[in-house]
Amino acid sequence: MLSAALADGSAHIPCSFEVFARRLPNGRRYGVVAGTARFIEALTRFRFGPDELDTLGSFLDGSTLEWLRKYRFSGDIDGYREGDLYFPGSPVLSVRGTFAECVILETLALSILNHDSAIASAAARMSSSAGSRPIIEMGSRRTHEEAAVASSRAAYIAGFSATSNLEAVRRHGLPGAGTSAHAFTLLYTGADGPNEKAAFAAQIRALGVSTTLLVDTYDISAGVANAIEVAGPDLGGVRIDSGDLGVLAGQVRRQLDDLGATKTKIVVSGDLDEYAIAALRAEPVDSYGVGTSLVTGSGAPTAGMVYKLVTVDGRPVAKRSDHKQTRGGAKAALRATRATGTAVEEVVYPLGSPPPIDDDLVGTPLTVPYVREGHVVDGLPALADSRALLRSRLVSLPWEGLKLSNGDPAIPTRFVDA
Amino acid sequence: MLSAALADGSAHIPCSFEVFARRLPNGRRYGVVAGTARFIEALTRFRFGPDELDTLGSFLDGSTLEWLRKYRFSGDIDGYREGDLYFPGSPVLSVRGTFAECVILETLALSILNHDSAIASAAARMSSSAGSRPIIEMGSRRTHEEAAVASSRAAYIAGFSATSNLEAVRRHGLPGAGTSAHAFTLLYTGADGPNEKAAFAAQIRALGVSTTLLVDTYDISAGVANAIEVAGPDLGGVRIDSGDLGVLAGQVRRQLDDLGATKTKIVVSGDLDEYAIAALRAEPVDSYGVGTSLVTGSGAPTAGMVYKLVTVDGRPVAKRSDHKQTRGGAKAALRATRATGTAVEEVVYPLGSPPPIDDDLVGTPLTVPYVREGHVVDGLPALADSRALLRSRLVSLPWEGLKLSNGDPAIPTRFVDA
Repeated sequence: MLSAALADGSAHIPCSFEVFARRLPNGRRYGVVAGTARFIEALTRFRFGPDELDTLGSFLDGSTLEWLRKYRFSGDIDGYREGDLYFPGSPVLSVRGTFAECVILETLALSILNHDSAIASAAARMSSSAGSRPIIEMGSRRTHEEAAVASSRAAYIAGFSATSNLEAVRRHGLPGAGTSAHAFTLLYTGADGPNEKAAFAAQIRALGVSTTLLVDTYDISAGVANAIEVAGPDLGGVRIDSGDLGVLAGQVRRQLDDLGATKTKIVVSGDLDEYAIAALRAEPVDSYGVGTSLVTGSGAPTAGMVYKLVTVDGRPVAKRSDHKQTRGGAKAALRATRATGTAVEEVVYPLGSPPPIDDDLVGTPLTVPYVREGHVVDGLPALADSRALLRSRLVSLPWEGLKLSNGDPAIPTRFVDA
Repeated sequence: MLSAALADGSAHIPCSFEVFARRLPNGRRYGVVAGTARFIEALTRFRFGPDELDTLGSFLDGSTLEWLRKYRFSGDIDGYREGDLYFPGSPVLSVRGTFAECVILETLALSILNHDSAIASAAARMSSSAGSRPIIEMGSRRTHEEAAVASSRAAYIAGFSATSNLEAVRRHGLPGAGTSAHAFTLLYTGADGPNEKAAFAAQIRALGVSTTLLVDTYDISAGVANAIEVAGPDLGGVRIDSGDLGVLAGQVRRQLDDLGATKTKIVVSGDLDEYAIAALRAEPVDSYGVGTSLVTGSGAPTAGMVYKLVTVDGRPVAKRSDHKQTRGGAKAALRATRATGTAVEEVVYPLGSPPPIDDDLVGTPLTVPYVREGHVVDGLPALADSRALLRSRLVSLPWEGLKLSNGDPAIPTRFVDA
């Protein structure tokens, strides 16, 4: 594509591309935008060095290679903020420049936004289900080693309290947390057999009694008894990682209380998803560890966003294939809310022409500038801002929108024609 | 864990850890091992530099930090070959050394093996369904940007013919392939409206008539007519990316034949998975482009492998939690096959004690050495070897084992006690 368009000059025509999702996955009520700042950062490093050009040289002509060698994006990018909601058709990202400089960004933009938004969208449902109880992200072992770091970041935006991924702590400044594994308890096995108390004592020597002990390696009741015997009633917490967590949480709570450890917290983990978290609402659980379902998007491992050419030299363009129709033209969006703050609809309208909004509604603009003439704008939001934004956005949804069950998007999208 | 075990000396006890899957996902008949060479390569780069130690310094003591600063794995690693099959309980990887040097590898080993094996396992089913028709991997836009590269590699092991991910071409030497996007056709839109023929002509000028033209941007019949009008009957191929692919493939084949383009191939893409590929067996399709379902593991985005401590100072250890029982002791495995070559069972036995095998069966050892005393062994298999191994392994499965429908593993796993 690039080579052919450079050869006849079409490569230099001003174009705009747009990232949007045609639908939400699996009857979800809303999606959560994440990854935009990672994309912008990756864009600044998107270069074709000698190694890359050597590979491309096997099938590209010299002038295309030379164009790639000098490649620097020089256009404009706008988009939704990380932590904002999106709905079908929301113009999550708008990329404008020459055809050539925009078209080669498709994979970079989509891979990052599709992954991170899928994780954030699942994570937000889990955070909603957990309410005020904290969730630790523990999914690194169940996804690609770099996707794990990005997943931790997306989960934090979506309300998770901490991550066990230390590289995410280092790279993104997230709060770190974790507990010990069964291997640590099993390590304390001598000629006389397992010695759970020795493992607990070693952990407490290293970390103090505020630590969380994993009590389900052998027998949970014995594990709880051993934990309190070794740590005393001021033990910080116990973790249960197997069995019927609802039943066990109740049993362990009673046992802890009987032992005087009334302030010892109960952490549960083990194949939790948003539904399992919701099912534990009435149980004496203090926090959750969530792994597999988070990093796999809880059934929706990709957000299904696409990157479509919408204008060529100012003219709207759109493909007309069955079931995949695309609305042409560059777009902006706002969210119409009632005076009470409740969202009513997503309004997608032609860029540059503010849409009609009912008098009794307030329109909040949703797109912000990220890049101008190739330069990243100052003041990209911090992760904490994105996290706070999502919290406020979820509060603005109609009640139906927070249901876990499959259904329609929480608010409709209204498309205003040019 | 590390800090506590270093403090009391337990960290230095010789241990072995094992990677295995308790079950196959979603009623799958077999799993495909992938990622092992990536793990071994990552192991050689697994170091704690100043940046990492600075982050860890916020909660680790000085002697633990010093131990991490000097960290080099000095133990042994054995495992299944990439491209081999695995079944529930197969000891896919065995890591032996001190507790400390092994325990910190859990996330690295599992993230790579769980991701790559999930992709390869899904890809193998697609390759089986496609038979001799080639499949191009096109999923990069639907997964994390680095997972995309690993997915291309895993798909190639599992029989895909090429990838559209150019970084995978560069990094792993995979064959590259791709077609143009709708954006390229849309680019050729002037004041008079769309000009599909101009787009096709530009592509042919750049790549010759052996190229593949995307014909479904506007109207497929008109697109095919335009393609042959511009390219002549020697056009290499046309791609259809939307609509009812089975019906359209037949229509397009007839149209191409009527236009004299009897050798022009038909490439189909658009939400294909192993079931859709199978459903197209009787249609005149020449090759497939597969994206989303490949990189998301077609419903099983993670392989669910675990990394478990199985011996401590030579003693078998195992946790005893409900539903998560682990068999202690270091293990090896062989696959028992009939003289005809058909696999009968996976035999998992204590390392060092060859298992009883029926006289009429042949036992093929499955584990090979990867690392000895911290050094990577010579002669790790090339990707082409892994690809050839899987092809031969799939041929060895009983017929039931290649069914796409949910069911039991293709062969049972027999565990031989110590």
